[in-house]
Amino acid sequence: MDNFIDHRVRVRYAETDQMGIVYHSNYLIWMEIGRVEYCRAQGILYRDMEAQEGILLMVAEANCRYASPALFDEEVVIRTRIGDATPRLVRFDYEMKSCSDSRKLASGFTKHVFCNRERKATKLPEKYRSAFGIGA
Amino acid sequence: MDNFIDHRVRVRYAETDQMGIVYHSNYLIWMEIGRVEYCRAQGILYRDMEAQEGILLMVAEANCRYASPALFDEEVVIRTRIGDATPRLVRFDYEMKSCSDSRKLASGFTKHVFCNRERKATKLPEKYRSAFGIGA
Amino acid sequence: MDNFIDHRVRVRYAETDQMGIVYHSNYLIWMEIGRVEYCRAQGILYRDMEAQEGILLMVAEANCRYASPALFDEEVVIRTRIGDATPRLVRFDYEMKSCSDSRKLASGFTKHVFCNRERKATKLPEKYRSAFGIGA
Amino acid sequence: MDNFIDHRVRVRYAETDQMGIVYHSNYLIWMEIGRVEYCRAQGILYRDMEAQEGILLMVAEANCRYASPALFDEEVVIRTRIGDATPRLVRFDYEMKSCSDSRKLASGFTKHVFCNRERKATKLPEKYRSAFGIGA
Repeated sequence: MDNFIDHRVRVRYAETDQMGIVYHSNYLIWMEIGRVEYCRAQGILYRDMEAQEGILLMVAEANCRYASPALFDEEVVIRTRIGDATPRLVRFDYEMKSCSDSRKLASGFTKHVFCNRERKATKLPEKYRSAFGIGA
Repeated sequence: MDNFIDHRVRVRYAETDQMGIVYHSNYLIWMEIGRVEYCRAQGILYRDMEAQEGILLMVAEANCRYASPALFDEEVVIRTRIGDATPRLVRFDYEMKSCSDSRKLASGFTKHVFCNRERKATKLPEKYRSAFGIGA
Repeated sequence: MDNFIDHRVRVRYAETDQMGIVYHSNYLIWMEIGRVEYCRAQGILYRDMEAQEGILLMVAEANCRYASPALFDEEVVIRTRIGDATPRLVRFDYEMKSCSDSRKLASGFTKHVFCNRERKATKLPEKYRSAFGIGA
Repeated sequence: MDNFIDHRVRVRYAETDQMGIVYHSNYLIWMEIGRVEYCRAQGILYRDMEAQEGILLMVAEANCRYASPALFDEEVVIRTRIGDATPRLVRFDYEMKSCSDSRKLASGFTKHVFCNRERKATKLPEKYRSAFGIGA
């Protein structure tokens, strides 16, 4: 589908665990950063979509496959794109790589249901659809 | 002042860092658990105070002194009491110890301002005051 | 396969996000608690397996499907069982439910590779195999 | 004493809580980022100091005073400087401000003991002292 949007984060000490690597749940937080930045690159502020329009992207499923552990202070590139989208649902796909040696760290996806402030399923307003790659 | 209320937590793998010990910011989360359980022991549900009455305990200051590192899978007792309270402010004091060997892990305090849903300073409603040790 | 081991946790304030529900990556931390408690129920201390035997359960994949949001202060039961295991790999399956109303919160799995202290793939020592349901 | 080193972070959704603001323990993680970047600005890689020299900065005390809540997607500048340092101990001071409107978010400090790999108190090696502002 469409192209990846790249965004870099640096591994925090707080994100490591006693195995000496990034604790695995943090990759889901990186994915969240990836999709916020994906939206920003499309001209949408996720915070405005939520605060002003009352549109929430409730997470319906998250998946991550871990290829190589990320280490403290490493720069990681989060690559995000939309895998599939309808006015009801969107799936983001992610790849995470080390910036220093390009080794693949992880890949995964998240599936979301567009919801209103009461967390009930709703349709994405028209004005946001093109940003999510949803055709006319 | 009044007595400590004790509550136990077990150290999660996610709470450790690459030093092999609990990452220090997690003690503030344990303190939060301590004050929720302190309230419960006084017959107050913190969630109801917030959801039904719109009373928030905004954190104004947090302090923690670390004595001995907590380790993965250790049981930790969080001891919580009210250090000071007025209808406007409350300070909780905490001590954290290992359950296995009673060594002191940390001690600290948090200061809070009672706020309403708009996060503006307010007075604690009368009905909650005795639970916080606020006299007539 | 074998039976679920149940373990309860109470939702921490720190685990919520501004949507007013538990942030989705925390379910992976609950799964980690589930498998540590699964091991304990089988007579194995995960911390000893790691510290004394140098056996790490590196996460190769994690998946979570979210059914209903968990709320602050709710008690959640984490149900954990082994879905599949060989001397090289293990998959844990999880179900998470609210204790108060039994509604299903989430389900998922994690796949792990047994590794040594150098984080290289290894075989699970014989003495642990029965606990993981690995036959002779 | 010496000058502040500035570093920016953007508030993550995961860092918010159901009050709609950044959960207070996350400021301690931002302080950690601040001191890692402080070291980098002095030409020291914290990760190398730890991995190669076996020097750990164990946290002995942390303090944070909260002035105004940080919000999702806000850019925050973390200002870090050394408040005091000897070959045994160092105190970092921090100020956190919003980048958009310069309002003060929080201020605080952390005190650290230089430790070796066994987490025993040690002296900071000579070669690192000038970076921490420790005179001859």
